[in-house]
Amino acid sequence: MNNEQDTGRNERHEQRMARKKDIVDEKIASAQTEKGLLLIHTGNGKGKSSSAFGVLARAIGHGFNCAVIQFVKSRSDSGEEALFQKFPEQVSWQVMGEGFTWETQDRERDKRAAEAAWVEACKKLADPAIDLVILDEFTYAFKFGWLELEPVIDVLRQRPPMQHVIITGRAAPPALIEAADTVTEMGMVKHAFQQGIKAMPGVEY
Amino acid sequence: MNNEQDTGRNERHEQRMARKKDIVDEKIASAQTEKGLLLIHTGNGKGKSSSAFGVLARAIGHGFNCAVIQFVKSRSDSGEEALFQKFPEQVSWQVMGEGFTWETQDRERDKRAAEAAWVEACKKLADPAIDLVILDEFTYAFKFGWLELEPVIDVLRQRPPMQHVIITGRAAPPALIEAADTVTEMGMVKHAFQQGIKAMPGVEY
Repeated sequence: MNNEQDTGRNERHEQRMARKKDIVDEKIASAQTEKGLLLIHTGNGKGKSSSAFGVLARAIGHGFNCAVIQFVKSRSDSGEEALFQKFPEQVSWQVMGEGFTWETQDRERDKRAAEAAWVEACKKLADPAIDLVILDEFTYAFKFGWLELEPVIDVLRQRPPMQHVIITGRAAPPALIEAADTVTEMGMVKHAFQQGIKAMPGVEY
Repeated sequence: MNNEQDTGRNERHEQRMARKKDIVDEKIASAQTEKGLLLIHTGNGKGKSSSAFGVLARAIGHGFNCAVIQFVKSRSDSGEEALFQKFPEQVSWQVMGEGFTWETQDRERDKRAAEAAWVEACKKLADPAIDLVILDEFTYAFKFGWLELEPVIDVLRQRPPMQHVIITGRAAPPALIEAADTVTEMGMVKHAFQQGIKAMPGVEY
């Protein structure tokens, strides 16, 4: 690119960006409501739980009190658990589930585990001293019929007004999406596992 | 549901899950390659950077050495920066960018900042002592023509074989997606900001 072309590109860029700044500034000025958010991370791609844990890192950095309830027991050597348990005054970490349902192969046991986890979740969702509640892999409770959705949504609606909640898991039911403020669908474009690559520590767990 | 129906449901569940376990076990057994992964988090939804920071939490928990380079300067009061700077022996955190391009409105300055950030990134991508490199908001360098893509892909290909890299940002270019192992498209189903809700600390930053 010669200098003249480059100067033209820079000028056009400047004009475009000035217009964009006006639009962005106006949007920011009109977004003034403050409230506790309900976030859902769903879809078949990677990043649902890890994004919740990234938000947890943010929240700890801001001095928040946080609670994590894992509805599906994953491995006990996870890096996130090792890290976040270094902050016991700010984070309560409960692994309540019994493993993926194709591992346990026992629907009644899975259902009892989900019900017990929900009892714990309800305590957190009633406590205004907790700023962020993460219900990890919670959507499976509806997929497999372990919990009724309507009473769960009632509890979420009645939680302390400034409390944030993140729910992760595939196939979030429509009524839950309707009740949420921010919903991200993590879509899988490709995954290393498909190419015969093992789950790597520090990335997958 | 009466007891008979429930028994039937439980039995069918058991059979289905036994089949599913076989399939999952077989897939896990055949995924035995170990290598450093290139992950891309792209799309217009929330969760691209936060998911990278969740993986960072995992990696720290496993004792990894990590480097974060932010190509677009966000606010200086971010919770993630506050938290991860508590681990200076494991995490190097460099904010190299100059703010979103519609904020700076100066393409030449943005380009120089991106080039300087890339020089720093190249040092990390050549160092086998670093297990995880996060190039946050890196895709904008291609969207705005600050960097050439091909030499960047060459550097990524020639990095230490066990080093993991995460690149975040909207509109990842196809050649970068081609070069990656795992790619997630964070799709926006809905966002609180659209409903006039302010960026909340601990969730958005």
